[in-house]
Amino acid sequence: MRAALEVIAERGYRGASLAAVAERVGLTQQGLMHHFPTKEALLVAVLEERDRWDALPAGRLRLDLLASLVEYNAMRPGVIQTFSALLGESVTEGHPARGFFTERYGRVRESMAEVLRAEYGERLPGGLTPERAAPLVVAMLDGLQYQWLLDPGSVDMAEAFRDFLALLGGAPDGSPGGS
Amino acid sequence: MRAALEVIAERGYRGASLAAVAERVGLTQQGLMHHFPTKEALLVAVLEERDRWDALPAGRLRLDLLASLVEYNAMRPGVIQTFSALLGESVTEGHPARGFFTERYGRVRESMAEVLRAEYGERLPGGLTPERAAPLVVAMLDGLQYQWLLDPGSVDMAEAFRDFLALLGGAPDGSPGGS
Repeated sequence: MRAALEVIAERGYRGASLAAVAERVGLTQQGLMHHFPTKEALLVAVLEERDRWDALPAGRLRLDLLASLVEYNAMRPGVIQTFSALLGESVTEGHPARGFFTERYGRVRESMAEVLRAEYGERLPGGLTPERAAPLVVAMLDGLQYQWLLDPGSVDMAEAFRDFLALLGGAPDGSPGGS
Repeated sequence: MRAALEVIAERGYRGASLAAVAERVGLTQQGLMHHFPTKEALLVAVLEERDRWDALPAGRLRLDLLASLVEYNAMRPGVIQTFSALLGESVTEGHPARGFFTERYGRVRESMAEVLRAEYGERLPGGLTPERAAPLVVAMLDGLQYQWLLDPGSVDMAEAFRDFLALLGGAPDGSPGGS
């Protein structure tokens, strides 16, 4: 799985091959295909594996934990690179990750709305409902990752995300997550 | 150029071929290579062409025009798909668009900071400097595009971006760009 993550980070999914993944783990392509019969099967396994790793029990995610997750992500550029590359590729026609991402983003927006509702109730300080604000949080997470991956010295992803949370919470004094 | 945009939107850059672009415009691959000797040369031409089309004279961009640009983008999914796919791929190793995007984002953040300074002066209503807020605006634009491309029925990119601008401008009543 880690080898697949690395190969996708380096070449993207379309540029990756089962042969390259197999070589990296010292298997024959045949041997790898015993576990993952197709490149698509390997891709889906990688995507689901990440969600398993990063999943929190329902109701345990909070806005301040989200900021910590961004900080944590800044220390594992390989994983972020893989998923940013896959998200980008997924908007091309017939990409095997497209269904996964479409469905995932639907779920992520819903759970983000719940996080916002737990923090702010039915209206955020700026007046948005949790459902209207949820896609903005998700977009900020994704968008900052691209700028940071391209130029880590110029963009402090964790600091920028905290700036955004402060805006959501009605800055200047409404830093989110404090209680 | 339009054929190249289409082929990249469908297959990504790594999946695209000069042969596919040539076929779409009724040229031999030889004929196409007379104008663009390599796939990379065609890619760079496409990237620069878009910036030429969308460029405004220095100092003419304003926050409210940015909201209009998002509305306009929502009517040309092909162009947005191409550039979102390329941005995604560009974070993989040695991708020929990486330098272009890194350099472009540096410029875009700078010009965004100028736009914010023209609108709000040295501090935005939420307390951020224009330089701290600029990457957030850029990230929101990119991030919303992915959610919208994956599921246009669920995400209203233009409305969501206006929501974000209102937050930046110190909502509830600070809708930006009005004067």
